Amino acid sequence: MPRDPDPPAVPTFSDVLVAHDRIRRHIHRTPILTSATFDRMVGAELFFKCENFQKAGAFKVRGASNAVFGLTDDRAAKGVATHSSGNHGLSLSYAAGRRGIPAKVVMPRTAPEAKKAAVRGYGAEVIECEPSISSREAALADLVAETGAEFVHPYDDPRVIAGQATCAKEMIEDLGALDIIVAPIGGGGMISGTCLTCSTIAPDTQVIAAEPEAADDAYQSFKSGAIVAYDAPQTIADGLKVPLKELTWHFVSTGVSDVLLASEQEIVDAMRLTWERMKIVIEPSCAVPLAAILKNRDRFAGKRVGVIVTGGNVDLDKLPWL
Amino acid sequence: MPRDPDPPAVPTFSDVLVAHDRIRRHIHRTPILTSATFDRMVGAELFFKCENFQKAGAFKVRGASNAVFGLTDDRAAKGVATHSSGNHGLSLSYAAGRRGIPAKVVMPRTAPEAKKAAVRGYGAEVIECEPSISSREAALADLVAETGAEFVHPYDDPRVIAGQATCAKEMIEDLGALDIIVAPIGGGGMISGTCLTCSTIAPDTQVIAAEPEAADDAYQSFKSGAIVAYDAPQTIADGLKVPLKELTWHFVSTGVSDVLLASEQEIVDAMRLTWERMKIVIEPSCAVPLAAILKNRDRFAGKRVGVIVTGGNVDLDKLPWL
Repeated sequence: MPRDPDPPAVPTFSDVLVAHDRIRRHIHRTPILTSATFDRMVGAELFFKCENFQKAGAFKVRGASNAVFGLTDDRAAKGVATHSSGNHGLSLSYAAGRRGIPAKVVMPRTAPEAKKAAVRGYGAEVIECEPSISSREAALADLVAETGAEFVHPYDDPRVIAGQATCAKEMIEDLGALDIIVAPIGGGGMISGTCLTCSTIAPDTQVIAAEPEAADDAYQSFKSGAIVAYDAPQTIADGLKVPLKELTWHFVSTGVSDVLLASEQEIVDAMRLTWERMKIVIEPSCAVPLAAILKNRDRFAGKRVGVIVTGGNVDLDKLPWL
Repeated sequence: MPRDPDPPAVPTFSDVLVAHDRIRRHIHRTPILTSATFDRMVGAELFFKCENFQKAGAFKVRGASNAVFGLTDDRAAKGVATHSSGNHGLSLSYAAGRRGIPAKVVMPRTAPEAKKAAVRGYGAEVIECEPSISSREAALADLVAETGAEFVHPYDDPRVIAGQATCAKEMIEDLGALDIIVAPIGGGGMISGTCLTCSTIAPDTQVIAAEPEAADDAYQSFKSGAIVAYDAPQTIADGLKVPLKELTWHFVSTGVSDVLLASEQEIVDAMRLTWERMKIVIEPSCAVPLAAILKNRDRFAGKRVGVIVTGGNVDLDKLPWL
């Protein structure tokens, strides 16, 4: 796939600094909330970085904006493209809309109409494919060949990882030293960015990834020392079904302290508890860290812990506890 | 009912300053959120003061804490009491728990078990009565006579109004001049506090009250110039069913610029839209201001508008759009 001229193979912290300056005016500096209830339950100080309040409803807009606004005018004019039925598609559409360039998002024809409508709402075009990886890749390759659009992968892209890394940077700027930062892991974009930031400006901060038991490919990769990928894992945490790729595996294998798991029921319970106690709307994927923390209290007791609340795009007609 | 020694008949802004110093360490200074979507929909700059993130889940903890922490040690030792099946009962229980004094809350035996459990969870005692005003008042009078507990009315109490007034004070400190502040109106405690603060430190700021059409007693009072009270209005905005009383009518009749109404459907739509777009959990009562603003855009266009998001205590098993 064509990429920006000479993207670095592995992003460095100076890419993060550039990214932050580039995207600052297109994103929210999201607030950090605390909860006396959760602190008491865990015996720790928890700091929730609310990316559910982020533009387009999720942290993904950081990486997408960095990719879109980092393009030269010539490349940008041809637009951007991706495959995603989730927050990356929305975020890329948002960022492209802000820059005033075309965006095309390949989505399975079976994806919910509401998600297609949301992408179109940002002015992007939805390209429907069959619900298979081969159909998705063929559709994407066709449209890139046809339009010259720039492919922005949801996570296996240095520009995206450098963008996601700005989230942990803001946390450390606002909170000072943290003992641990916990984030969910799917493809690993947010965790990679977090590792990148921490290894440079907070080397004593452990990065812990939280994953659904039902899609524990990152856990298996971490334990076995090589990428393990599943074909079609089923979990309510639908943002976390995708496997690690080369770039994200680099960060996971070198920067993550541990991967903790949570069951489907624990994820739903933590999601509901967050709505009830913190009064914020979070997606199932983003309840996985709290579920993992509640399950492993000893690990966190007495610590200052940052928790990345990754997104809040939920279908309010289908709540998992109803 | 016995009260603190010499409470002022009508609170003044110096009572608000004292209240703020008194309660500061017991409450959150709640964040103020914005929404590009809502700004675009209304053509205004809206600032949402998130009291749904407040301790005990609602602004009521401001007034309750001011009453509880303003008591002399002798009076405090006898405890506090109120009647409330809503946020005031919870808030008084929270504040009493913080001070380590007894609290008794009279609730109809028909109130949801979850609400009774929440009050007990803060260490307070629930006194059950029959679901009628006479039974409630008799139960309260009995327990006050028996224990000497201090009655803290949910809104018709100068200490409570001075406490609620700290919310608008924080908004003006954080945001500077606002053209309008909108808050829901039930008994009028929050609106009265808002009028008190604005009349002193922001006299050019209009205070607009928002009320359900189905319980429009404050609207009728405002238009007719005398308190109108209904017996048992039915509205989904269950925090807004109670009538104005002497003290709150004083502020409503002298400080409020207008009372705007919203239908039940408009309230539910605004509630859902807030969850969806702002990713925050708000109660039906607290969607009334946004519903009224969306219905009266012309009135707000081009203005800087503060919106008090009063609380987030919702039964997640019973969402009004499901």
